[in-house]
Amino acid sequence: MTDRRLAGPVRIVGTGLLGTSIALALRARGVDVSLADVSPSSLALAIDYGAGRAAADGDNPELVVVCVPPDVTARIVAHELEAFPNALVTDVASVKVEPLRELIALGADVSRYIGSHPMAGRERSGAISARADLFNGRPWVIAGHDAISYGRAAAVEQLALDLGALPIEMTAEDHDRNVALVSHAPQVISSLLAARLTDATDAATALAGQGLRDTTRIASSDPELWVQILRANAPAIRDILHAYRDDLDRAIATLDAPDATGSRRALAELIGAGNVGVARIPGKHGQAKHFSRIVVLVDDKPGELARLLTEIGELGINMEDLRLEHSPGAQIGLAEISVLPAAESRLVSELEQRGWKISEALA
Amino acid sequence: MTDRRLAGPVRIVGTGLLGTSIALALRARGVDVSLADVSPSSLALAIDYGAGRAAADGDNPELVVVCVPPDVTARIVAHELEAFPNALVTDVASVKVEPLRELIALGADVSRYIGSHPMAGRERSGAISARADLFNGRPWVIAGHDAISYGRAAAVEQLALDLGALPIEMTAEDHDRNVALVSHAPQVISSLLAARLTDATDAATALAGQGLRDTTRIASSDPELWVQILRANAPAIRDILHAYRDDLDRAIATLDAPDATGSRRALAELIGAGNVGVARIPGKHGQAKHFSRIVVLVDDKPGELARLLTEIGELGINMEDLRLEHSPGAQIGLAEISVLPAAESRLVSELEQRGWKISEALA
Repeated sequence: MTDRRLAGPVRIVGTGLLGTSIALALRARGVDVSLADVSPSSLALAIDYGAGRAAADGDNPELVVVCVPPDVTARIVAHELEAFPNALVTDVASVKVEPLRELIALGADVSRYIGSHPMAGRERSGAISARADLFNGRPWVIAGHDAISYGRAAAVEQLALDLGALPIEMTAEDHDRNVALVSHAPQVISSLLAARLTDATDAATALAGQGLRDTTRIASSDPELWVQILRANAPAIRDILHAYRDDLDRAIATLDAPDATGSRRALAELIGAGNVGVARIPGKHGQAKHFSRIVVLVDDKPGELARLLTEIGELGINMEDLRLEHSPGAQIGLAEISVLPAAESRLVSELEQRGWKISEALA
Repeated sequence: MTDRRLAGPVRIVGTGLLGTSIALALRARGVDVSLADVSPSSLALAIDYGAGRAAADGDNPELVVVCVPPDVTARIVAHELEAFPNALVTDVASVKVEPLRELIALGADVSRYIGSHPMAGRERSGAISARADLFNGRPWVIAGHDAISYGRAAAVEQLALDLGALPIEMTAEDHDRNVALVSHAPQVISSLLAARLTDATDAATALAGQGLRDTTRIASSDPELWVQILRANAPAIRDILHAYRDDLDRAIATLDAPDATGSRRALAELIGAGNVGVARIPGKHGQAKHFSRIVVLVDDKPGELARLLTEIGELGINMEDLRLEHSPGAQIGLAEISVLPAAESRLVSELEQRGWKISEALA
């Protein structure tokens, strides 16, 4: 990896959420960014927002970043490789095996192509949701392959670093298997769970708590994009869902005969395995840390939460996380504040002195 | 329903999270609360916290609230009905059909029993996590049945109201079917998903985003409690999981042959059905509302988020929700703030004038 920053010029193809966000971040660093999109109105919008200039004849980009839907990624990458014979070309699609395979089948010059995947999607899409800081602190997978040299690929790693992301190198196969596990299969599972609510009575949904909200939040994702991702990574997702179904079958069999010998143990193991699995997910700051949580009662009116956080700030205590609990029908909120364990007792006593109602130590 | 408040005396059996929380809330209203628990140390802890006094010979409670695990609920309720022949007895177990059925089988006087279920669990348990405001704004199901008169049951509705909860009447059967859908089946589905992570590589879990964290959060729940809930409500949960498995089978079949005719449509319908389902969940304040969301970049240091919220408060704009996005490895956070759509443009321009970096309208 070189020490310099990307100097550009950089060409961005596709001015959706990711393309526009990358363009904005590069523009903020003074890089010459040229933009292209099949939709003239989408392109004009991105230019209006200051994401760069329209591509022009004679452009000679050092790097081309293809930010188009997975289905058309390989075709566009192949076109860019041919149109700009001196450029390194990368893409940001959520799948990495199929585009590379398709490029090789198309006879493209993959010695100048390296796929990448910034893990920074949002539930919303389009240039309108773009932001220069989208990649800050997020993993950015760089999917190396044998036909490209280490030196050539360095520019993509530099792009990720310039945008504040954390470059992680892995093969396209490893990438696809990993995102199937942590992103694609969970999307299917969450969508299928949410689909069960389609015909729910109002009496049932009125009982919904934060658990249901959390487990189904990603089920509001865009069908069009996900059709492409699921198809392109079908083999890896299917493998996980097959194993998941085996576990589900066992759970159903146990619930079919809850009084059978061993059913308690089977159910305890089911929930216990989930405990173990969820503990594998790294927390904030890239590592699994345990925080102390205290719950503070906050009136649901302007300024109340701010006042609480101001007082916490005055104490010099850093919040590691903050969750607001929804109370259907209530004009009151509960703020669950995570802090380092060492800070907990001082925080509780100081806040109580200031008149806040704390619940952790029994208000 | 009567207009008066519960005057007590009230007896609480079981000083775990729910029992202690109910006791604390009643004590705060000046009610005479007597406490009982099979564990002397658990009882002593609750008394230390001010949740009430130890039960004594001669107690004559108006209301007995049984707050013990589902497995032993019916047996304890039957015992209380016998020991206090003038008292109304309720329980707070997460299942309602089985305890009632068991009570009838035991020959208990169910004309003085009505089951209830405050929807206010937490991921943590025990008196140590109890709080008087636990039920504030939460639904509290009251499961009526034919053997108890409307007038008799009113005291339980009054209990819920006194504790700030929202009483919702439904039959035990409806309750069990509804919570199977919005709570019990989602628990199984989330636990099974998290279990897939048990053998995940570090490279895979390093790519985990907020979506995986949200879908698996409840998978850290207590196995012992959930074994009892899942067994007691097995038939209703099983029905939902059977339908869920049918959908899953269809998804797997589609992914087994992603190039087959109709696969795009099948996948679009899968994600689309999830969109429809998740929209059925009521939002804050008990109704499905759509809010505008803006994203603000916040330095990860004490006081920064407070400063932001203070300035929003000064503008007189009420935050409907606040989400912090985790950035693994980064010392920076993204605050996603939900406001009523009418407030959005003013909020964005005012915050930008104050130097905040906003992402919604492209900073």
